[in-house]
Amino acid sequence: MTISSFLRRASSYLHGHPACFKALVLVTLSSGSLVAYSDSQSETDRVSRDLNQKEQKKKKVVVLGTGWAGTSFLKDIEVSSYDVQVVSPRNYFAFTPLLPSVTCGTVEARSIVEPVRKIIKKRNGEIEFFEAECVKIDAANNKVLCHSNLDENLGGNGEFSLDYDYLVIAVGAQVNTFNTPGVKENCYFLKLVHVMQEVEDAQKIRASVIDCFEKAVLPGLSEEDRKTFLHFVIVGGGPTGVEFAAELHDFIQEDLINIYPMVKDLVRITLVQSGDHILNMFDERISSFAEQKFQRDGIEVSTGCRVLGVSDKSLSVKMKSGGEVYSIPHGLVVWSTGIGTRPVVRDFTEQVGQGNRRVLATNEWLRVKGSENVYALGDCATIDQRKIMEDILSIFKAADKDNSGTLTIDEFQDVVDDILVRYPQVELYLKSKHLMDVTDLLRDPEGNQRESVDIEGFKSALSLVDSQLKSLPATAQVAAQQGAYLSRCFNKRQQCQEHPEGPRRFTGSGHHRFRPFRYKHFGKFAPLGGEQAAAELPGDWISMGHSTQWLWYSVYASKQVSWRTRMLVVSDWTRRFIFGRDSSRI
Amino acid sequence: MTISSFLRRASSYLHGHPACFKALVLVTLSSGSLVAYSDSQSETDRVSRDLNQKEQKKKKVVVLGTGWAGTSFLKDIEVSSYDVQVVSPRNYFAFTPLLPSVTCGTVEARSIVEPVRKIIKKRNGEIEFFEAECVKIDAANNKVLCHSNLDENLGGNGEFSLDYDYLVIAVGAQVNTFNTPGVKENCYFLKLVHVMQEVEDAQKIRASVIDCFEKAVLPGLSEEDRKTFLHFVIVGGGPTGVEFAAELHDFIQEDLINIYPMVKDLVRITLVQSGDHILNMFDERISSFAEQKFQRDGIEVSTGCRVLGVSDKSLSVKMKSGGEVYSIPHGLVVWSTGIGTRPVVRDFTEQVGQGNRRVLATNEWLRVKGSENVYALGDCATIDQRKIMEDILSIFKAADKDNSGTLTIDEFQDVVDDILVRYPQVELYLKSKHLMDVTDLLRDPEGNQRESVDIEGFKSALSLVDSQLKSLPATAQVAAQQGAYLSRCFNKRQQCQEHPEGPRRFTGSGHHRFRPFRYKHFGKFAPLGGEQAAAELPGDWISMGHSTQWLWYSVYASKQVSWRTRMLVVSDWTRRFIFGRDSSRI
Repeated sequence: MTISSFLRRASSYLHGHPACFKALVLVTLSSGSLVAYSDSQSETDRVSRDLNQKEQKKKKVVVLGTGWAGTSFLKDIEVSSYDVQVVSPRNYFAFTPLLPSVTCGTVEARSIVEPVRKIIKKRNGEIEFFEAECVKIDAANNKVLCHSNLDENLGGNGEFSLDYDYLVIAVGAQVNTFNTPGVKENCYFLKLVHVMQEVEDAQKIRASVIDCFEKAVLPGLSEEDRKTFLHFVIVGGGPTGVEFAAELHDFIQEDLINIYPMVKDLVRITLVQSGDHILNMFDERISSFAEQKFQRDGIEVSTGCRVLGVSDKSLSVKMKSGGEVYSIPHGLVVWSTGIGTRPVVRDFTEQVGQGNRRVLATNEWLRVKGSENVYALGDCATIDQRKIMEDILSIFKAADKDNSGTLTIDEFQDVVDDILVRYPQVELYLKSKHLMDVTDLLRDPEGNQRESVDIEGFKSALSLVDSQLKSLPATAQVAAQQGAYLSRCFNKRQQCQEHPEGPRRFTGSGHHRFRPFRYKHFGKFAPLGGEQAAAELPGDWISMGHSTQWLWYSVYASKQVSWRTRMLVVSDWTRRFIFGRDSSRI
Repeated sequence: MTISSFLRRASSYLHGHPACFKALVLVTLSSGSLVAYSDSQSETDRVSRDLNQKEQKKKKVVVLGTGWAGTSFLKDIEVSSYDVQVVSPRNYFAFTPLLPSVTCGTVEARSIVEPVRKIIKKRNGEIEFFEAECVKIDAANNKVLCHSNLDENLGGNGEFSLDYDYLVIAVGAQVNTFNTPGVKENCYFLKLVHVMQEVEDAQKIRASVIDCFEKAVLPGLSEEDRKTFLHFVIVGGGPTGVEFAAELHDFIQEDLINIYPMVKDLVRITLVQSGDHILNMFDERISSFAEQKFQRDGIEVSTGCRVLGVSDKSLSVKMKSGGEVYSIPHGLVVWSTGIGTRPVVRDFTEQVGQGNRRVLATNEWLRVKGSENVYALGDCATIDQRKIMEDILSIFKAADKDNSGTLTIDEFQDVVDDILVRYPQVELYLKSKHLMDVTDLLRDPEGNQRESVDIEGFKSALSLVDSQLKSLPATAQVAAQQGAYLSRCFNKRQQCQEHPEGPRRFTGSGHHRFRPFRYKHFGKFAPLGGEQAAAELPGDWISMGHSTQWLWYSVYASKQVSWRTRMLVVSDWTRRFIFGRDSSRI
């Protein structure tokens, strides 16, 4: 019996058992088929063709990236309905919100990473993973071209391509240096610069901080030199930059000062921020709390300050107000600002006619605009929320059932639910105006209830609603929710084809298959060092101080992706409490 | 009051308080004097000269290296008697016996390192540490020239020199490639190659093993390619190579196979050994136990096999017996054989007239031969034990108190203790001959007790003793004991000058100041994977199997240098038992 006939027999026998069948396919694709491979190349091809025919109903999904969005999609996708292949230059998922802790050794790099293969393994190994980078999306042919980043030794240049029926782009963003000269060469980063270096960069920052101290205590240096080595500059006053500054301050004050007492008075930390305040995306109470805390801690905050260039020994900055240009000597610069586009995404934006956009625009169902079968989520995408004023006539027409040219309260009530789902800005607008009920929108300018409105009245009632539109922040929370949302849509595709669950189409007939993506904000944290943190929690609740740090600990421990990382992170924190941070240059 | 006059006043005030005084000196050397530095360079120089005069009684000790020998010396040295400065390219001590565990992630790199500054901090911060490499020992001028390995940004090329009264060389050895072509470029190492990379190399091996698996599962490769990527070759069948092979086997079988099931039948591990057996410095029962275990595990052992060269894809080996030359394709080669000389040591051997030696020869008190004030210990040194036959006439003369030309048993008894201390080979010889008492040596060839012996009889009685001379192995145990021994000698120098504690000088008058170094062997382990280990314990006790692995765990946990690393190592082991090893490529 030849191998191919064995496989054919086995596959027909196993036809009714999808799990066993899939296992067989896997074995075939790996070791099984490899035996055949050495036997006869063409024979194997025929076998896989045969097998493919049996599987023709299963659509192929290719996922690019294993960050928050990609991983969250992979966790829930039903492999009984799809053939899923994942391409990512790193074979692990990193819990990025703890990266600033890694830079100072409060948490180990190992503790925040989880192998992708472990995550997809939960799905019985039926998702294929390739450690490679997607270098080109060929949308016309439904193909992605990939390049293994393990270039040495690899036959065939390490290039391969994958076909897809659906493509999920979740490659994230990279750092944006705004073409500032010298930044790439002389700065450290807390955001992807090169492929797969986020965690490595955090580790490098740690080693470099210790290097600065070791350099500063060498014999025969002038005080000026020592001061330069011990001047740490952070560019960017966002949550990551602020958290790193706070972590660094704690690392130095709690640990390094004790073992380098001879230079303790020479250390300086400066945070350079182009805006007027640090943490300016937070509530201003938090922003000023952070600024005051930093002032007490001796962390200098230079606001309104733009970086013109960075050399290996200094950086030159320009004050926005006066226009003066300074040169600041430094030992280490960490660049923590700006979100840039990955080359593969930039190339794809052009293919789908979104030429000069920084990120991919998708509709509310996360499908890339200008494409039928490509989805984008996380930091590389933004949702282009439909404006209600674009559809105002259709909405009016759909709601005005009796074609009377006026809309009664009852008629409006009929479509309100669909409107609220389709245009989330309506709810935000009601909230901002403290209105209790949607029908309150239809009151006349004096605030009296009206029986009905005509099209002009309807237009003016909703005219300000779109002002509430804002794009979602580039955070882990958004990416994770989008991944989970998209996998749910994929899993219910068949079911929702027949029984749509989305709102009615105002510009067409019937209903949308799915409800559009809706982001649920669970709040955000800004750790400020010294066991203090600030948080904006749902319901506009602001919390600051030591208790908030404990809330931070418990939230971050609970959000860990596996019990292993949870145990490791908690034991890292415990170790830090007992023994402090390690200062070995490793 | 100028700064210098303040310092002079303060120093005279503090004269009687060495600890306070030393603290002041430290402050002066770092921040204090730096203020003066920017004020006036020459002023500062004068101040330090003044201070130096006050301190002239304290001798300067410079220690090179922070491995087992250096660290163990630093732990115990009395800083009240010496000014100690340490120069090492790495600012941490690494628990090297656990390096093979780091290569597979059984133990984290962080868990086996302890900052040197923490270790010397216990001594009230009175030992200065410089992260730099000693590039040249200038024995004629009692100076060492150092180069900071943090070259970038450093004023004055990062070079500085230190004066010493005593120099302690404990820089260890580096790998020896025996000039085999391609080894440096294409192999990984478990022993220092470049400065300060031991631990980093172990981490790289781990990432590289995972790379091999990621490469092997990429699409579009031939089975041959996949097999090549998954062929792991270890060169060297010593304890380190064997332990690495065992760890790698466990890592693959217990962890990687589960997440890369498609290539599980393609993995191969080969151990290449030039000798006839692996672990040939162990008892042969252990050696054959290890070979049998490896055979059961599927680890191929190629004995009698010399490596001719290594390329990025294959290595060529020659069978010693038949002379055939093979080419073996590989995915990864770990080179774990040979001990080479560090350049700074090679240069110094020439200065002291030990031209073509591989390591520095010292006398039994660890002082380098041909030098008065330089000591060498650990892997860079070997003790040149004095042969008893060289001194046989002097011994006879010293023992023969009545100058009768014959030695009675009583006369011999008088010098026996001194002989046993001065010539440790005597004790080893007695043991090897199963003799109970030293005087048994003087029996006649028929085994009858003699009343006295003449010089010829004495010579022939001791003629075979020197055959028991052997040099100590290059292990952590030896290095650590030497460090502790030397610091004890340094601490008792003054006391032993007046009351020598060593044996009598046979070739001179009086006594040696100190007892010579005596190595105490506590046994050695060879972990063999699968929770099994072999051990040679004191008293020629051989132990093999699972219980020995548990002994290994407890010994290695107890030998940790700090409670922090102890906790970390034990929690790493626990984590591995519960969750397995991590396969993230980081």
